Amino acid sequence: MKHIPTYLFLLFVASFFSCRQEIATNSENEGFPKLILQKSSVPEMIEGLKQYPLLQSSFENAKDIADKGIEAGIVVPFPKDPGGGYTHEKHKLNYLEMYNAGLVYQLTGDDKYAAFVRDMLVEYARLYPTLGIHPMQKNQAPGKLFWQGLNESVWLVYTIQAYDCIYGFLSVEERANIEDNLFRNMVKFFTEEDKYSFDRVHNHGTWAVAGVGMTGMVLADSLMVQKALYSTKLDGSGGFLKQIDELFSPDGYYAEGPYYQRYALLPFMVFAQALENNRPDLKIFDYREGVLLKAVTTVLQLTNSDGRFYPINDAIKEKSWLTSELIFGTNIAYARTNEATILDVANLQNQVMLSAEGLTVAKAVAEGKARKFERKSMIIRDGANGDKGGVALLRLGKSEKQTSLLFKFASQGMGHGHFDRLGISLYDKGQEILPDYGAARFLNVVAKEGGTYLPENKTWANQTVAHNTLVINGQSGFGGRYDEAEKYNPELVFADLENPEVQIVSAIDEHCYEGAVLKRTLALMEVDERVYLIDLFDIKSRLAGLYDLPVYFNGQIIDANFKYVRLNQYKTPGKAHGYQHLIVDAEAKNIPATASLSWMNGTGFYSVTVLGGKGVDCYITRLGANDPNYNLRPQMGMLFRFPDSKNKKLLTVYEIHGSYNPVSEAVLGSEGSVKELQLIEGDGEKVAVLLKLKNDKTIQLLLDLSFSNAGENSISVEGQTINWTGNYKVFTN
Amino acid sequence: MKHIPTYLFLLFVASFFSCRQEIATNSENEGFPKLILQKSSVPEMIEGLKQYPLLQSSFENAKDIADKGIEAGIVVPFPKDPGGGYTHEKHKLNYLEMYNAGLVYQLTGDDKYAAFVRDMLVEYARLYPTLGIHPMQKNQAPGKLFWQGLNESVWLVYTIQAYDCIYGFLSVEERANIEDNLFRNMVKFFTEEDKYSFDRVHNHGTWAVAGVGMTGMVLADSLMVQKALYSTKLDGSGGFLKQIDELFSPDGYYAEGPYYQRYALLPFMVFAQALENNRPDLKIFDYREGVLLKAVTTVLQLTNSDGRFYPINDAIKEKSWLTSELIFGTNIAYARTNEATILDVANLQNQVMLSAEGLTVAKAVAEGKARKFERKSMIIRDGANGDKGGVALLRLGKSEKQTSLLFKFASQGMGHGHFDRLGISLYDKGQEILPDYGAARFLNVVAKEGGTYLPENKTWANQTVAHNTLVINGQSGFGGRYDEAEKYNPELVFADLENPEVQIVSAIDEHCYEGAVLKRTLALMEVDERVYLIDLFDIKSRLAGLYDLPVYFNGQIIDANFKYVRLNQYKTPGKAHGYQHLIVDAEAKNIPATASLSWMNGTGFYSVTVLGGKGVDCYITRLGANDPNYNLRPQMGMLFRFPDSKNKKLLTVYEIHGSYNPVSEAVLGSEGSVKELQLIEGDGEKVAVLLKLKNDKTIQLLLDLSFSNAGENSISVEGQTINWTGNYKVFTN
Repeated sequence: MKHIPTYLFLLFVASFFSCRQEIATNSENEGFPKLILQKSSVPEMIEGLKQYPLLQSSFENAKDIADKGIEAGIVVPFPKDPGGGYTHEKHKLNYLEMYNAGLVYQLTGDDKYAAFVRDMLVEYARLYPTLGIHPMQKNQAPGKLFWQGLNESVWLVYTIQAYDCIYGFLSVEERANIEDNLFRNMVKFFTEEDKYSFDRVHNHGTWAVAGVGMTGMVLADSLMVQKALYSTKLDGSGGFLKQIDELFSPDGYYAEGPYYQRYALLPFMVFAQALENNRPDLKIFDYREGVLLKAVTTVLQLTNSDGRFYPINDAIKEKSWLTSELIFGTNIAYARTNEATILDVANLQNQVMLSAEGLTVAKAVAEGKARKFERKSMIIRDGANGDKGGVALLRLGKSEKQTSLLFKFASQGMGHGHFDRLGISLYDKGQEILPDYGAARFLNVVAKEGGTYLPENKTWANQTVAHNTLVINGQSGFGGRYDEAEKYNPELVFADLENPEVQIVSAIDEHCYEGAVLKRTLALMEVDERVYLIDLFDIKSRLAGLYDLPVYFNGQIIDANFKYVRLNQYKTPGKAHGYQHLIVDAEAKNIPATASLSWMNGTGFYSVTVLGGKGVDCYITRLGANDPNYNLRPQMGMLFRFPDSKNKKLLTVYEIHGSYNPVSEAVLGSEGSVKELQLIEGDGEKVAVLLKLKNDKTIQLLLDLSFSNAGENSISVEGQTINWTGNYKVFTN
Repeated sequence: MKHIPTYLFLLFVASFFSCRQEIATNSENEGFPKLILQKSSVPEMIEGLKQYPLLQSSFENAKDIADKGIEAGIVVPFPKDPGGGYTHEKHKLNYLEMYNAGLVYQLTGDDKYAAFVRDMLVEYARLYPTLGIHPMQKNQAPGKLFWQGLNESVWLVYTIQAYDCIYGFLSVEERANIEDNLFRNMVKFFTEEDKYSFDRVHNHGTWAVAGVGMTGMVLADSLMVQKALYSTKLDGSGGFLKQIDELFSPDGYYAEGPYYQRYALLPFMVFAQALENNRPDLKIFDYREGVLLKAVTTVLQLTNSDGRFYPINDAIKEKSWLTSELIFGTNIAYARTNEATILDVANLQNQVMLSAEGLTVAKAVAEGKARKFERKSMIIRDGANGDKGGVALLRLGKSEKQTSLLFKFASQGMGHGHFDRLGISLYDKGQEILPDYGAARFLNVVAKEGGTYLPENKTWANQTVAHNTLVINGQSGFGGRYDEAEKYNPELVFADLENPEVQIVSAIDEHCYEGAVLKRTLALMEVDERVYLIDLFDIKSRLAGLYDLPVYFNGQIIDANFKYVRLNQYKTPGKAHGYQHLIVDAEAKNIPATASLSWMNGTGFYSVTVLGGKGVDCYITRLGANDPNYNLRPQMGMLFRFPDSKNKKLLTVYEIHGSYNPVSEAVLGSEGSVKELQLIEGDGEKVAVLLKLKNDKTIQLLLDLSFSNAGENSISVEGQTINWTGNYKVFTN
């Protein structure tokens, strides 16, 4: 099979069984609905409504949306406004109302819901053929109802399910009108006029093929289904299977990152379920060793302990696993796997699909089958073949009190990718401690450029300096050139996440800065109720340059062991590549060899300790320069600047310590514990990192940075030879 | 009774009954404990522990603290450190451990708890006589164990209760040692060496008299009790009754504000309960028409919908009604009144007193008797006689979704008072919308000046410009002179909080700026699901001056209907009175006649619209200038500047509108609705405020600013005469 891609094999199989006939035989009223909610499930759903609270409330919610729609009356406005504007929001509301009314019709048998969907579809059937490209077209892929073709695909994914639900209610003439004027017209738009988006291996493509493919099943048009599966050329160069092949890694990581993963998962899961119901021959959930189901558990792991997705690449940081898109993912995944921890999340989502899958979830929740979903330490590979780097998740503690470190050594991640390589984000007890900025966007807020990505998304959020990672010579990785960035990825060097004493991971990047090899090694451990993250950047470079290490933080500076001066002048630390947005709020020149700064955030205390010294400067920065419209949040940060560096090891220790209890007013451990930081280099790539603590203990981390010698190693520390076995070792004494 | 103060009357009564004998007769072992937990209640407490979860968990909590103390062993260090330091925290922990161990001894009969308290008391009895004034004395009233005498009083309040609990366990010799060397010595310190604090009508005095008074009851020393009740001079010039007389208004408002009210309430309530148990003749809870119980419900009302106290004057904003100090307040108040809404709060506190009062609460909670505590609109008078202004609370909606406006026209509030007069704070759905800064202090954070008030508390937080109220000529009220500020207070002019269409309040200040009379009138209403706060400042002044109206906000600026320029230079809007801490981040000159700015905070949208025009400037400010140690939070604000003003009406409208739902990504009503603002002046003091909305509706607020004509009024608006009855009227059309 190595030489014949799976999708091609399936293409042959599919052609062989001539699915056209298969679908056509289903076209009697009796077979509808057939996509997600199945006619055969309706009786048990109605039974379940009486028994399972989660199903009940989800039904009530759907009915409420449908009832409000019916009460408000049908308005199908001529498309005019951009995102956030009236016609945009109205068409979005319309599909939601139709979708819910269709489901409620099936579960109540009340004709008024079917009539509502029909009447609205008739309006759309009247309007759609009159439309040209949307007047406010946003990009090269505009829609007709919406400024973006993407929104139009989403509209179809929901609306075709509504149509499926009321199919049996309609006369032959009504069907012909709606199908010919609306659905076939729209499918034509997707598969001919906007063929580029449809065939694209990208989440926009997934929405399009899901909409068109499901339309094909309802209209018994197998060509539509074939195009959805194998691209408009029917050759497997695009389409659903190719998308599954290329957009997910074997570990279920989606190249654009978790924020887009939860979005793209909706059409992936819904279309897959529709295929499972109508084309069981495809065994779509087994495809690529069940990568779609894997993608669900993976995206659930890619959340902080408050459920919010790690903001890798462009991401709105408020988004959490409670998002309605992911209800489809958890419900379908649970129904297929009976994995009790997925049920935990489905329960938190507090809403289920109105389908057999949702019924299964609601029943299992009512029966108390849910088991706590725990986030675990893991490496998640990126790339279709798992060979494009990835992300490491290092976790200490459990549930709400968990500390987690995200280490990103993944690929660029397409157009929404950011130029950071080897970036980290640190979380503690649900709070961001070393935050990633996420995207510069106020989603759906009209006054902020219609809620789209703001100009500062490119000039700031995408840039390397916007992340907690090294910047050389004030330039983003790859000089900020997307095409170059897409070509390369960092690689994992070593990881051991199983050692209860310390979790360690190391990754390398050889491409983001020409002539430089960057290796970042991270070790996370807990000692005496304090969490230490040792962060060692090992840079080997042909040319000397300026090294900057930005460290972003939230909260209030409490203390520093060095003098800084708050500036009473306006200064940015650079002019481009994101630096033009930073304001130097305070600065310290020639910070001490062991330079510590502490801050407070909410009820916790945090410290960073850097191996500084003569020539090393620290800027305390605030975001907001060259931001005329307050498009950027005033994110605080530090920038440690190492001028004229070449081959250099940057050692930083982050510490999570202490607590403030506002009820009892008790403050514990508000001071950082590191008195002195030492980095000792031995033979080869051996190093010893020493944290001498104020309580006179010492934490020693011994490393062979090549991570190639798991045998005996030794290094001389303060005149004593220390021996250890393996690539790394931690001693505390 | 008008000419004989109540306390003097009670003094006579008390002397007459010769309480010394009364207490002495109780001195047998059988009568102990007698202060709060009563010997007679112990059997039913033990019964209750089996039945009531809240009592159980509170007992478990106490036992846990005591067990940890016993396990750790007794350490009574020589006093050395300031607040937050080791010896300070250790002595605090010690009293908590003794207090809890004493209670646990009573409820378990296990001698090890009594022995622990005894052994620790013996250590204190050994140490205390050797002590001089604490080496780190904080102020003019230092302690011996602690740098502040206040901490020492608190220590005594808890420790004497522990002693009371183990009294029966001790031999006569042990008692003599502990009483003579520790308690009598400490009481001597309070009543002789630190007489000033003891006799002071102030919360420090209350802690001292509570500690000494309860010690007197346990030691059967009625002179101690008399001193606690009537001052060391025994003449009623100070002491508990005088404190009750002067520190609370008839409405139960405590002059320092709610943050200190919740703190002071502990000794007030605990000492009162001890008196009720041992000196029932005093009928202390009936004193001043039951003002102590009133003070409990009042402080509960002085919270935002998330339970946090309004930060009037010096206040740590995290503090909420869940604070352990208030457990005594709610428990004692419920036990005496059976008010089911107090029970709601007691239940939220999730811990009860280990006493008959706590038992009553735990039982009532278990029986489901709690009723939702609702925050209501009300005027709360300040001043011992209720004649020193007050605060108005205007509320719309219920529970978590409530909008509330706090209008402060209270007196200075002693040393922790701030110089704002007629200041406002606005809250919505638990969020601060127009925030008050609170205090510049990081409580118990050692690195921040030992956790005490920071220098910026005086230079910023206390100043008028740190609040949402008018500043004239860049000066704080009374020029920032405390003695002057203490002399005067604003007054209520008019309030109607009963009208479902609009809540309105008006207050006046004639003293804070010489030669100027400030009247602020506020009207809060909801129209079409948007909340409007109309804010009319009417200033009459002998001299022209510069008027500044600061408006603080949290979150991100979304939009403005005027051009502003973000500055790329460092500029403060003034040099003193707090202005030196503000940085002008952006500025707009000559803002339009109707100038609007919107911002987003969390999931809500907010707008301010000001009647501007030529010469009126708007600064967008950020806090942090002249703050070398990051002692100030980077609070955002606006400063509307009206130069060369004299008699002037400043009209501002705040609007709460729209929502962002991060789960559904739906954004509603993100834009403010006010298109045009008009202020029309009629005969006398009649004015019409017109809000012309973007949807072509108009909201009209008609006022007679003298609020002296409740009869027929009229004004000409755009050529039409409008008639209305009463001091004010709202029309929407």
